[in-house]
Amino acid sequence: MIHHDGSGLYVSNPEPALGEIVTVFVRVTSGTRISRIHARSVRDGEPVFTSATIDRRDAGGEWWRAEIEVRNPVTPYRFLIRTATGAVRWLTGWGLTAHDLPDATDFRLVAHAPPPAWSRDAIIYQIFPDRFARSAAAAERPTPDWAVRCDWDTPVEGSGPLAATQLYGGDLDGIAEHLDHVAGLGANTLYLTPFFPSRSNHRYDGTDFGAVDPLLGGDRALMRLSEAVHARGMRLIGDLTTNHTGDAHEWFRTEPDFYYFSDEGYESWLGVPSLPKLNWGSAELRRRFRENAQHWLTHPFALDGWRIDVANMTGRRAADDWTHEVAALLHRAVRQVRPDAMLVAEHGHDSTRDLDADGWQGTMNYAGFTRPVWSWLRAGELPFADFLGVPGEIPFRDAGDLVATMTAFAAQTSWRAMTHSWQILGSHDTPRIRSVVGGADRHEVAAGLLFTLPGTPMIFAGDELGLTGVNGEHSRTPMPWNETDGWDMRTLARYRALARLRHDTPALREGGLRWAHAAGDVLVHLRETADDTVLVAARRAPGPPVRVTGLVPHAWGDNLYGGAEPLKAGADGSFEIDGDGPTFQVWSVRQNPKGC
Amino acid sequence: MIHHDGSGLYVSNPEPALGEIVTVFVRVTSGTRISRIHARSVRDGEPVFTSATIDRRDAGGEWWRAEIEVRNPVTPYRFLIRTATGAVRWLTGWGLTAHDLPDATDFRLVAHAPPPAWSRDAIIYQIFPDRFARSAAAAERPTPDWAVRCDWDTPVEGSGPLAATQLYGGDLDGIAEHLDHVAGLGANTLYLTPFFPSRSNHRYDGTDFGAVDPLLGGDRALMRLSEAVHARGMRLIGDLTTNHTGDAHEWFRTEPDFYYFSDEGYESWLGVPSLPKLNWGSAELRRRFRENAQHWLTHPFALDGWRIDVANMTGRRAADDWTHEVAALLHRAVRQVRPDAMLVAEHGHDSTRDLDADGWQGTMNYAGFTRPVWSWLRAGELPFADFLGVPGEIPFRDAGDLVATMTAFAAQTSWRAMTHSWQILGSHDTPRIRSVVGGADRHEVAAGLLFTLPGTPMIFAGDELGLTGVNGEHSRTPMPWNETDGWDMRTLARYRALARLRHDTPALREGGLRWAHAAGDVLVHLRETADDTVLVAARRAPGPPVRVTGLVPHAWGDNLYGGAEPLKAGADGSFEIDGDGPTFQVWSVRQNPKGC
Repeated sequence: MIHHDGSGLYVSNPEPALGEIVTVFVRVTSGTRISRIHARSVRDGEPVFTSATIDRRDAGGEWWRAEIEVRNPVTPYRFLIRTATGAVRWLTGWGLTAHDLPDATDFRLVAHAPPPAWSRDAIIYQIFPDRFARSAAAAERPTPDWAVRCDWDTPVEGSGPLAATQLYGGDLDGIAEHLDHVAGLGANTLYLTPFFPSRSNHRYDGTDFGAVDPLLGGDRALMRLSEAVHARGMRLIGDLTTNHTGDAHEWFRTEPDFYYFSDEGYESWLGVPSLPKLNWGSAELRRRFRENAQHWLTHPFALDGWRIDVANMTGRRAADDWTHEVAALLHRAVRQVRPDAMLVAEHGHDSTRDLDADGWQGTMNYAGFTRPVWSWLRAGELPFADFLGVPGEIPFRDAGDLVATMTAFAAQTSWRAMTHSWQILGSHDTPRIRSVVGGADRHEVAAGLLFTLPGTPMIFAGDELGLTGVNGEHSRTPMPWNETDGWDMRTLARYRALARLRHDTPALREGGLRWAHAAGDVLVHLRETADDTVLVAARRAPGPPVRVTGLVPHAWGDNLYGGAEPLKAGADGSFEIDGDGPTFQVWSVRQNPKGC
Repeated sequence: MIHHDGSGLYVSNPEPALGEIVTVFVRVTSGTRISRIHARSVRDGEPVFTSATIDRRDAGGEWWRAEIEVRNPVTPYRFLIRTATGAVRWLTGWGLTAHDLPDATDFRLVAHAPPPAWSRDAIIYQIFPDRFARSAAAAERPTPDWAVRCDWDTPVEGSGPLAATQLYGGDLDGIAEHLDHVAGLGANTLYLTPFFPSRSNHRYDGTDFGAVDPLLGGDRALMRLSEAVHARGMRLIGDLTTNHTGDAHEWFRTEPDFYYFSDEGYESWLGVPSLPKLNWGSAELRRRFRENAQHWLTHPFALDGWRIDVANMTGRRAADDWTHEVAALLHRAVRQVRPDAMLVAEHGHDSTRDLDADGWQGTMNYAGFTRPVWSWLRAGELPFADFLGVPGEIPFRDAGDLVATMTAFAAQTSWRAMTHSWQILGSHDTPRIRSVVGGADRHEVAAGLLFTLPGTPMIFAGDELGLTGVNGEHSRTPMPWNETDGWDMRTLARYRALARLRHDTPALREGGLRWAHAAGDVLVHLRETADDTVLVAARRAPGPPVRVTGLVPHAWGDNLYGGAEPLKAGADGSFEIDGDGPTFQVWSVRQNPKGC
């Protein structure tokens, strides 16, 4: 096995400055004889090769090192490998390839301002404010003209006009009252969908980006929530809508240059008239958004970052494409007031061309995480019939396809952008993971992948209780605080245990990733730092035991999660994954056993 | 087999305007049962699906159609295929894939200004002026101080200080005197490496972009050459150096803003002091280049376009990246004076991210053509030891790797940019194809691929005579006009026949491409228009016969090139490629035989 990734095990500095020399390592595990390795980087558009040398040999393999100049803000690199038998291979983020291929899957060093250090260790908890919790004050607030007031246990409508108008009345003080639940789960960062005044329960049709919706308690409630969150050492992320506003926004009457008006009317998000699309050609619009973005990050609101709504379409329309400019503008604006803030883009599609461009630090990784996990773990019967907008049911794919999909997307971004993306099993825009996988045991496997693969785990509030939902609207379930009988306590305990495991295990937060096995029902991967090796085995179904290679001879591992027996590798480094399933198991492995 | 490409057989208009609706077709050959096809295009960053319907069934298969709006200047699209057995596949430029993958390999419709119509039918003949031919006047010109005057039959030095200073004295009138040779070969477009005054025989160190080097006969000689070329209905392409100038250029003394000066000195091309790098941050530099680019395209010089030198590095340095701006600026400048001009970028590396961006119409396709052909056809022993800058000998790869490489690069550009790129077997910067493949028969196979695969064939002057060369400098062989005994007349005849074949066969110029077989020593492909099907078989070595599928039952083909027997498909559409080799064969196939 010949491996490199962007983690600290293989890259001397994953956050280099422009012009810095970075040392990169290729690891060759025993059994492969290599005669020569070159690193190839692209310097001002031209490839340059530097010869790699053997740095050391240890139980983990043979480590080759080469130096690369971070010549450009994004410096692509790959390796040219010649084996002792004369075979020639390229090693890129896509793996080993026997033919030539474009740079798209090259590893890359990124010299743009890095994401904040804390975000690497974040576990995010997503809250849809109308549905999370009501404070006592909520009941006294008048019902706005657009809304249909609902009791907390009224069933959520998944479609039709009520979907956007059912008002359950959750508010920010309600959130503050339940921080024990969030902290107890092990999450350390709250992400709130929009809190701006609007004319819907989802608030993506903002009418004023300068105020907190009075229905949520207004500005003072956000100050209180922010203070409560920060008092616990937690973080708070907001949600900014940059692609459109609500048609009730004052700008829509007073600032025609902010929109796309024509003789036929105006451009709107996917043709929805209440969501007129913003025209980022306007310098004044840019100025206002810079101001908005900064306002909420500073005292007394002190948000710790933004999730950017519909980032994939923001600034794009016909011949206009200002998306990277908008991202860079917001990144600059944010850094100016809060160098430690997070900036993550919603992108339900393919974000690879929008990352690493001095804008978004990461994405909501539907393409490279959610979809492959769903495709591997989907239930036999599904209560819905599309695949996040792709026509037809979720395809049922095997573990090899999961790895191929994750690799295809990860290979086209930097390791940094991938690990700072939000790995999600679902959100307020999708069916709930429980409805996708159909039961608690596969739900555990999904959650296990969420907490053990690279990336920032995000939990959509209620997933930890085993709530269900067949589409985004339907999944916006009010949290059943008073119906604890309905909580799936086993699932809640698993989420807590997995979050704790991640918190206690540096390799799960910052380690490299090697796939050890991926076929059919079985997926095995390794997360590794210089000091720790964690081995993770996931099975979606029972079946014959599987023998897997990838450890050093006689490696030995304590079980950290799942309750399986200790892991014992044979003299050839192979070990057996038994036939139980669905199951999720994690071991701490001594890859470098003393005395062997 | 399920197929789509960007040719007119599958796309109603490959040169659409922004906003146009284009019909795209997927072809399903018999044997595959499909239940559903959707086209997915990306519209302002968001995917939209449109349902495809069966347009018709004919002997060529089942043709599904869908409509796509050319919403953006580059509109990516792909197909979602569900087979009757429930399998789900994506069809992109990379082929059929069973897992999700990013947009990078999507097909694409491009609404930027298209390349000129004539360029699709161009066969380019590359001339290095100092080495092509001397007119009578050449002998009388004084030898400049930097030059070492050589007789026409002096051996060319492949390295050392003489490589750039040996002056053979070829000139533009010399070229004009040999247009019969070029026309007789079947080429219709001359591409001249630079003709500007300089201090080297290659003239990439230009000292004045406003004049023709007096050593070449000066401005008037270019007027005469242009007139002679155009009188024959041929075209003439120049070579513009945008990355650097010579250090003897007046600008280097008078225009510090045009370069990168610092306390340590100045930036230059790959560190070569005589080639200071241009700084495209200068608005005045941009203005001058706009002027230069236009000057030579208009009367009385009337060049028909530019090849842009070192386009891959132009405008790129550390944090600067103006490459797309430079390309767009030059494209606009060129279109303004000559909407029918060609603009092609030198890019020895990966040009895929620089094409389709309203700049270069195509590239010199080393990555997606030269390298895979060399890797497949290389001789057993090579007289040189690197692979176009990649350390180590040219890998010896099989036909499957050739197709994988070509597909990997083609899939990341539009069909239009790929077909308007220059397919080359070598140039003044590389070893000669004859030295790569080692003999006349594999040389024929290489030339066969050059003339039958999509793209614009370019012949480096002398390749048609079987000249040799072990690196770029060494390949700049003076044309042995007076030593016809040394001409490889068989190779010359083959080039002539292949050029004529391409000229006479629309499918070879504008047809789609389907690979029918690619393994080991054998490569078979189809080029198809609505009216014509051409089948091409290439073998690099003798071996067992190979049975290939891909034709309709009982299809029948006349041999057009190579002299093989007529092709006869069996009842299952399969046919046999016999064991002779190296060989190159082309048949005109009746895919839709009447009465069968």
